[in-house]
Amino acid sequence: MKKKITIRDLANEAGVSVTTVSQILNNKGERFSKATQEKVFALRDKYKYVPDFNARNLILKSAKTIGVLVPNIANPFFGTFVEGVQSIAREAKFIPLVFSANKDPKLEKYYLSQMIERSISGLVIASATMTTATIKEVISFNDIPYILFDQNHTQDGDRVQTSDYLGGQIAAKHLLKLGHKKIAVLTSDNPTENLNHRMNGFKKVIEKSGLTIIDSHDIIRAPLTKAGGYTAAKEVLATGASAVFAANDEMAIGLLRGLHERGIKVPEEMSVMGYDNIYWDDYVYPRLTTVQQPIFDLGAGATKMLIERINHDSDEARVQSFPVKLIERDSTGPYQQK
Amino acid sequence: MKKKITIRDLANEAGVSVTTVSQILNNKGERFSKATQEKVFALRDKYKYVPDFNARNLILKSAKTIGVLVPNIANPFFGTFVEGVQSIAREAKFIPLVFSANKDPKLEKYYLSQMIERSISGLVIASATMTTATIKEVISFNDIPYILFDQNHTQDGDRVQTSDYLGGQIAAKHLLKLGHKKIAVLTSDNPTENLNHRMNGFKKVIEKSGLTIIDSHDIIRAPLTKAGGYTAAKEVLATGASAVFAANDEMAIGLLRGLHERGIKVPEEMSVMGYDNIYWDDYVYPRLTTVQQPIFDLGAGATKMLIERINHDSDEARVQSFPVKLIERDSTGPYQQK
Repeated sequence: MKKKITIRDLANEAGVSVTTVSQILNNKGERFSKATQEKVFALRDKYKYVPDFNARNLILKSAKTIGVLVPNIANPFFGTFVEGVQSIAREAKFIPLVFSANKDPKLEKYYLSQMIERSISGLVIASATMTTATIKEVISFNDIPYILFDQNHTQDGDRVQTSDYLGGQIAAKHLLKLGHKKIAVLTSDNPTENLNHRMNGFKKVIEKSGLTIIDSHDIIRAPLTKAGGYTAAKEVLATGASAVFAANDEMAIGLLRGLHERGIKVPEEMSVMGYDNIYWDDYVYPRLTTVQQPIFDLGAGATKMLIERINHDSDEARVQSFPVKLIERDSTGPYQQK
Repeated sequence: MKKKITIRDLANEAGVSVTTVSQILNNKGERFSKATQEKVFALRDKYKYVPDFNARNLILKSAKTIGVLVPNIANPFFGTFVEGVQSIAREAKFIPLVFSANKDPKLEKYYLSQMIERSISGLVIASATMTTATIKEVISFNDIPYILFDQNHTQDGDRVQTSDYLGGQIAAKHLLKLGHKKIAVLTSDNPTENLNHRMNGFKKVIEKSGLTIIDSHDIIRAPLTKAGGYTAAKEVLATGASAVFAANDEMAIGLLRGLHERGIKVPEEMSVMGYDNIYWDDYVYPRLTTVQQPIFDLGAGATKMLIERINHDSDEARVQSFPVKLIERDSTGPYQQK
């Protein structure tokens, strides 16, 4: 059987690169001399060259692309996460493309399938709305490697993670050590699974110490944003607590503003503790005590794992855990009798 | 002449969608029944169907994609800008893909050319490092519509912009109105052209009022970041000024922390003014007075303009200007004699 003519054969005979041939046959060859263009078209006709879908796919795939799906690009947590992704992608000569469907699962699925049509090499998925069904239908089905950093731990596959339960325990121990006896919790009105783990770890330690947290009285729920924390200040004060653990730093920072406007001194009258260690914590007043998630490392680690998965396929799902730790700043202090 | 068989003809005869035929012929048809796959392959052989590069390009282009090039994804200014892009892209059913080469022009150029290979419909370019050469070689050459929101105003093409000169004037008038007589400037150690416009507008008004700003004494230069502003606090104090205009909010916020650590009361002892109105300004202490750029609107406006350009090509370059205005918060106050 005669060997099928390939684009490489044309390129060799024309004395130009494969890319040049590809661009000329794609009618994108205006940058090349008329002679080169004509030579390539003549060779195509001479050999009755038929472009091959797979060959074309290979060309497209030669520039390696990683899709990074985050819930919200403007959120500093995910900004830092993406910087971690970029640091590794750049080294490995992958192009990171970030997309965000702002928690709309339908839009997310549509964007995803379009990325796959564009021959994406792999995906880093940091999204709480991505469902197992979408992953199966759209991603696994097309054999696209992916790494999860999600907030619901419901999907199968390679993942990077931290222990939220442990992080919650660390926060509780810190506030107990400072002598607080009445402690409130400020959490999301629509918590993801990892937030529940975080709060369960917190409550477990508080209750083991002999104190109580009454759900209906000591747990305040609000949107997981600065504005959510800000407007919850009144309710947090109404609990009579001397310390509060907020589910993330954004909420804690909003709460700081709300307390400040009410003339409450932090930490003298109220200790405030956050979670995440976003890069703004050093620039609010007072500087925010928090539990650190290694956000940059999570992005970098997910990307390393993904590139390994792209280069060496294996069936075994891998999980990599990253440490959490206390970052003590100025927003928490010893209990002071009123 | 006999009409060339198209993928649509195959799809019609097979009773399946064009996408189905495309996927089967791409060897990505495992999801379809064996009967469907065989039917499609048989029709391809019967009609000697030859996939057409242009047809394939049309299919790829049918899902419209906008590339958004920003210098730094983790910067809240560009986070908000991208949210503006997304708001319009979503309505118009374009997919926004964000990429960031962190101010490395070579990497930027490489990423760009790869995006173009992937049949991107257009580009929103918010980058100070993008050169005219790159735009000509990579973007215009491939006939990719683009909109600029850059910091050097050196390139030709459609653009969205604000008046930095006017913004600087607004800042100066505000500080003069508060009675300040000795005013310092904190700007970048590597200013883009728009920052120079901003500072020229500022100086013009100050000098017109009879006051002076001595470059070597009253203008402090530092990296355009929170850390830059923070470490510049000592130098700013050494000027003996009672008010300072920082080139952007990040620097101003860093400066607030530096002043606070030195026991300087803002605004009683020092008024601090920023530029941009990023969404953190309300959550620092004291809340930051600034000149607002309509960041979200700039992203949305650029995207609207781009989609119009994609849909109706014209030769005329367009420029859309957006207003700047004073946002008075708590970090500036009347001059108080020491």
